[in-house]
Amino acid sequence: MNEYERPVFFHLMEYASKAEGDVIDMVSGDPDWEPPTALREGLREYADADVDEFQYPPSHGLEELRAEIADRRGVDIERVLITNGAGEANYIATVEALRELNGSEVIIADPVYPYYYNRIQMLDATPRLVSCAADGSLDPEAVREAASEETAAICICSPNNPTGAVYGGAVKRELLEIAEANDALFISDEVYEQFVYEDGAFESALSFDSDRLVVTNSFSKAMAITGFRVGYAILPEWLVGPSRTRHMLTNVAGSRPSQYAVLRALRETPESYHERNRAMLDERIDRFCEALDAAGAEYTRPRGSFYVMARFESYPGTLENVERLIDDVGVAGMPGDAFSSSRADWLRFALVTPRVEEAAERLAAYFS
Amino acid sequence: MNEYERPVFFHLMEYASKAEGDVIDMVSGDPDWEPPTALREGLREYADADVDEFQYPPSHGLEELRAEIADRRGVDIERVLITNGAGEANYIATVEALRELNGSEVIIADPVYPYYYNRIQMLDATPRLVSCAADGSLDPEAVREAASEETAAICICSPNNPTGAVYGGAVKRELLEIAEANDALFISDEVYEQFVYEDGAFESALSFDSDRLVVTNSFSKAMAITGFRVGYAILPEWLVGPSRTRHMLTNVAGSRPSQYAVLRALRETPESYHERNRAMLDERIDRFCEALDAAGAEYTRPRGSFYVMARFESYPGTLENVERLIDDVGVAGMPGDAFSSSRADWLRFALVTPRVEEAAERLAAYFS
Repeated sequence: MNEYERPVFFHLMEYASKAEGDVIDMVSGDPDWEPPTALREGLREYADADVDEFQYPPSHGLEELRAEIADRRGVDIERVLITNGAGEANYIATVEALRELNGSEVIIADPVYPYYYNRIQMLDATPRLVSCAADGSLDPEAVREAASEETAAICICSPNNPTGAVYGGAVKRELLEIAEANDALFISDEVYEQFVYEDGAFESALSFDSDRLVVTNSFSKAMAITGFRVGYAILPEWLVGPSRTRHMLTNVAGSRPSQYAVLRALRETPESYHERNRAMLDERIDRFCEALDAAGAEYTRPRGSFYVMARFESYPGTLENVERLIDDVGVAGMPGDAFSSSRADWLRFALVTPRVEEAAERLAAYFS
Repeated sequence: MNEYERPVFFHLMEYASKAEGDVIDMVSGDPDWEPPTALREGLREYADADVDEFQYPPSHGLEELRAEIADRRGVDIERVLITNGAGEANYIATVEALRELNGSEVIIADPVYPYYYNRIQMLDATPRLVSCAADGSLDPEAVREAASEETAAICICSPNNPTGAVYGGAVKRELLEIAEANDALFISDEVYEQFVYEDGAFESALSFDSDRLVVTNSFSKAMAITGFRVGYAILPEWLVGPSRTRHMLTNVAGSRPSQYAVLRALRETPESYHERNRAMLDERIDRFCEALDAAGAEYTRPRGSFYVMARFESYPGTLENVERLIDDVGVAGMPGDAFSSSRADWLRFALVTPRVEEAAERLAAYFS
């Protein structure tokens, strides 16, 4: 764990950019659509701000931004900690669960976004994997069986990366009950909440009141600004103190230009911005899945997020095969085994390009 | 350590802002001078950038920014890790020293910037304080005596906050030798390097080649942008892997708008920008110290940074006394005991206002 592993997506993006032919990049989760207009306006405004505004924001985040979030979430502002993206929010919640509660295991779903797994290892804790079904759904009973007094946290992302599954309110309630029964923290990562394609499929874990619940989120995907690093945790009261301290002594504070621009965008961006992006992605999913059908691929249509995992016969999702697809087909995806050995036969495609139909047609031509 | 302690400076800034009369704010280290012109231009340019540029930068920082820093520092680019301010750089270096080397103690100077002390405690390690002389100077022999096989790191800031002392190349070489002799890391925090008022007083620890040296720095003070959160660590080769991993799994990446603007400012800002700020602060120091003389205060003229510690007879540097100065005199400083019990009689004044002379005159009128 101590050696730096160059993330696979980074390697593949570079590999794709150096390939000879035209390559459609579906590797990473970097949105290709426009951020809100007010976000760019916020940055322009900030560029001319008084020098006072260029100095340390409060460590736990700009007061107005925390207030705006608290208001939308219906929680007390004291419970809102602005973090360096949802990554830091998940980090802090995981560390504090391991320190403040008994247990050295963290339950995560399999397949899983690799940062989750590696982060738990870095913290000298044990990742405890619970397998999802082929369609990405997660059976709370399997989580219940995996949970024990050794469990410090259950950390679940829904809508899910990489499967596109959405775990509804009933599942979240069960996961929270399991966490409570084992004196563990339920960390509900909801960064893809704006990307749900079925009415009512999504429910925030904040619907449930519990001192064993942390909800993490960020504006990275919702506003197409993964590089800005503005996320947050909604903490139970008893965790506010330790989490603020850890954030402060790790990072001092978050980036103020980013927080400033996000605040303006949060205040001024109409709901239609999100509706438009959602409709566009829904349409991309349709087109991509139709072409996957034509290619005879196995896949599950995502109910949320913007990834599709697909399996082509006799073409396992190894790094070598992904590189071959880049060279021979001009489509760059992610190997399934980056997410789990159980998904070693699969490939993940991020729908972050307007050329999804063309990509799927290329795949269909190659595999059929 | 688990309860959040609201930083004293935050409390005092708020106290000062709510005071009835006119208060001159000399509490925090937030520069009041202009950032480089090119920094504002960089932000404006970024606001109109393609959406690609709004997405994740490389986890260890924008390549061009790392190259620019490596070039100026004369080190291999691989050794440069961009961090969320020098705070995160110091955090990572301290954690990795404690993990990778033997020992559970970190040697720091007394008085000390409180984040150092608290960070070591958060990491379940032991802060080992070595007292500075009244003028802020640090005797390497005292550090040698404090060092042992229990020492994992020696973490020193020079030019120093709060004392204004500058430890020259000879002292740094000795500290590095002591670190090497005890298989510990010497963490040389050089964030105030642009603020040295005596020719030749400062020398970067990078003058010395060692696999037990980490140099940390940031643009927060040098470019008057403490809220941007762009710093860096220059790491020995063997620490590059673990440090990148920790940075990635804690923060994913740093803020790209900030890095973008800093890169442009780094490329385009003439040396005269720093000379002008230095001359302005040197002049402020002169005026403030002259008035302190008139007030009969004890102090040492800072050789670097932009803080002055002063002692007034029968007026210990307690929080209560600092609040009384705000109310009765209209000058807000920091209590010395925030930095060390050994400085409980002192007050620290940050020269981040054009009104330093007026502040000193108010103090003189009150105390004489």
